[in-house]
Amino acid sequence: MTLSVQDIWNDVAAVRKTAPLVHSITNLVVMSYNANALLALGAAPVMAHAREEVEEMVAIAGALVLNIGTLQPEWVEAMKLAAKKAASLNKPIILDPVGAGATSYRNRTITELLVMAKPAVIRGNASEIMSVSGLDSATKGVESLQSSEAAIDAAKTLARKIDGTVCVSGATDIITDKNGKTAFLQNGHPWMTKITGTGCSATAMIGAFTAVQSDYWRATVSAMAYLGVVGEFATEEVQKKNQGVGSLQIKILDALQLMPEKEFRKRLKMSLNGD
Amino acid sequence: MTLSVQDIWNDVAAVRKTAPLVHSITNLVVMSYNANALLALGAAPVMAHAREEVEEMVAIAGALVLNIGTLQPEWVEAMKLAAKKAASLNKPIILDPVGAGATSYRNRTITELLVMAKPAVIRGNASEIMSVSGLDSATKGVESLQSSEAAIDAAKTLARKIDGTVCVSGATDIITDKNGKTAFLQNGHPWMTKITGTGCSATAMIGAFTAVQSDYWRATVSAMAYLGVVGEFATEEVQKKNQGVGSLQIKILDALQLMPEKEFRKRLKMSLNGD
Amino acid sequence: MTLSVQDIWNDVAAVRKTAPLVHSITNLVVMSYNANALLALGAAPVMAHAREEVEEMVAIAGALVLNIGTLQPEWVEAMKLAAKKAASLNKPIILDPVGAGATSYRNRTITELLVMAKPAVIRGNASEIMSVSGLDSATKGVESLQSSEAAIDAAKTLARKIDGTVCVSGATDIITDKNGKTAFLQNGHPWMTKITGTGCSATAMIGAFTAVQSDYWRATVSAMAYLGVVGEFATEEVQKKNQGVGSLQIKILDALQLMPEKEFRKRLKMSLNGD
Repeated sequence: MTLSVQDIWNDVAAVRKTAPLVHSITNLVVMSYNANALLALGAAPVMAHAREEVEEMVAIAGALVLNIGTLQPEWVEAMKLAAKKAASLNKPIILDPVGAGATSYRNRTITELLVMAKPAVIRGNASEIMSVSGLDSATKGVESLQSSEAAIDAAKTLARKIDGTVCVSGATDIITDKNGKTAFLQNGHPWMTKITGTGCSATAMIGAFTAVQSDYWRATVSAMAYLGVVGEFATEEVQKKNQGVGSLQIKILDALQLMPEKEFRKRLKMSLNGD
Repeated sequence: MTLSVQDIWNDVAAVRKTAPLVHSITNLVVMSYNANALLALGAAPVMAHAREEVEEMVAIAGALVLNIGTLQPEWVEAMKLAAKKAASLNKPIILDPVGAGATSYRNRTITELLVMAKPAVIRGNASEIMSVSGLDSATKGVESLQSSEAAIDAAKTLARKIDGTVCVSGATDIITDKNGKTAFLQNGHPWMTKITGTGCSATAMIGAFTAVQSDYWRATVSAMAYLGVVGEFATEEVQKKNQGVGSLQIKILDALQLMPEKEFRKRLKMSLNGD
Repeated sequence: MTLSVQDIWNDVAAVRKTAPLVHSITNLVVMSYNANALLALGAAPVMAHAREEVEEMVAIAGALVLNIGTLQPEWVEAMKLAAKKAASLNKPIILDPVGAGATSYRNRTITELLVMAKPAVIRGNASEIMSVSGLDSATKGVESLQSSEAAIDAAKTLARKIDGTVCVSGATDIITDKNGKTAFLQNGHPWMTKITGTGCSATAMIGAFTAVQSDYWRATVSAMAYLGVVGEFATEEVQKKNQGVGSLQIKILDALQLMPEKEFRKRLKMSLNGD
């Protein structure tokens, strides 16, 4: 197995060049930030959640992102309709099981979505991935109390179950597929967890990359690698100026748009299993 | 026909002085940014979408802004109630047909809203205006694939149909009324399309201007002229600092509040038909 | 009665140390900014509004924040369920009656919520507090046309009625309890009203402080004191750079995270009745 920094940069360039349309049915907290993150990256976001139109919208999109952060019944119905349509059109579905394990409604919804269509990629923190995989986990609302490494077996089990890719994000981001092919990314910065929606933006960005890169494991690695480097770089920049997490939110958008290839290459810390 | 830079600046000053209340029923993605844009401009935003209260809310507002970016049935019902009430009170209705042409639900909703009450102003990109006007158009989710000039005939037709003003925004913003009186604005910057909600904020700002300027064509020109100059100025400022679209989002709010009259006069590029 | 700057700083430190989970059912405009404000402060936000899950969510939270800024019936039902559950678990409920007096639906909802469970704290502007207290008031949508001092009697009446704490925010923030114990805070800056969601963020922050400080009057004073000083400091910083309210929004988040104790002590302007 090989995946080079050049491969990843090529995926970033492909997103910028083709500006794929990403249809998100996502939560109310991060909707605006996610749309701005996709635009800064070079993709084209569309948010639509009415049962009356999600099937038509997903039909013109390159990927479907489902995020359960602020559920309500009509939205769950819309997610199911959109997922079914996406599956029938062979479009990648990316699932973000926000707060999995925190309430039985979230758990039930995830189960229903997984029955409706297999996602190409599931991305969550360690608690969420352990919960979706069927293991016990400790969730504090929507935050994980576990390191990503604690969820690696759960991620592999879940990847086999969905016949797809699972990403556990944390200090180390772990991306694994059904065959156990695994990438470890060690960029990023703890301050990124002090902004709402960075995890959700990661999921939205995975959507953009799967729309241009049909190897969904690779697309996920590319998205997480790019966001990790961008977030790390942006944090260093704001800290130099004695700024805080408000400024970081803005600097991440700037860097998603303007990160130079050289800076990205210099910073990327990736290892693959077998390396 | 004359409309001077002084007229436009007087409208800006009138918004700042009277702080008109603008009632928006708008989409979930831009709600916060639109509210902040109205506040920075000097207007007073209120968002309310429950069928139980929209009629009372619009009764105390100076204008009603309807934006279909993230529809769902209860919101459509609320928009209809609010539109009917606004019409009965002779308050201007501003319609933003986001993503018109992308799904049949959006098209149907627009038709229903136009039957309920004639908007004073419709603002959209070229694809959206062509779609609402009944012409074919190519929409990519919520982005236009056409230049604004391509929609000028559609805009004139639509302006006659609603007996009001139509604004096509793009590299050139075109504002036309039922008699074909037309203004062309050439400020702005392509980066403005890389922030979610600048188009929707334009529509919200038109609401603020129509609340203080009863010539709605002029109010629309003033709003678009001000935002165009602000966006162009803000983009230049952030580019000077090697910043990106995240910073631009913030700088636009700063400039909406603080743009000096002299800078505005120097930058405005407006022409009128017959000039 | 005594409450020292040291007491307040201890409360700030307690929030940062324990990162309490704050469950908010809040309005669509401020949801993202509130979540970011709580994170910058050091608390852990969770937004959830489905009737299917609010009881489970509030059960794992340290406080419940209810904000009626963008009501709709299902959300009102969820607020009632969450309030009842919070009351049964003795968790503090913080109510923000946004736009009270503007529509009968808002007034009715507030009445219903107050019947369901007594909030530990109600925070609003003068118009809102006067309206909730049963006095006439002049509201302009969601803005107050009254100074906070005009609402002091209404606040005391309301505090006795709910057997709790009432905060009237304005140029002077007034925090009073059922016994008439009252604090007056004179930090802040008028520019804070030109950003959407600072009032709502104040309410969310009160939630975080009540989760770590069981004297809810004190918790409210601490939250308002901290936000007032942060907002004043942030405004001065952005004005020094000729920046505006867009930058202020970001600077407030930075300062919520990074405000040094010394700066806080130097700036705090608090007086207590009897002083």
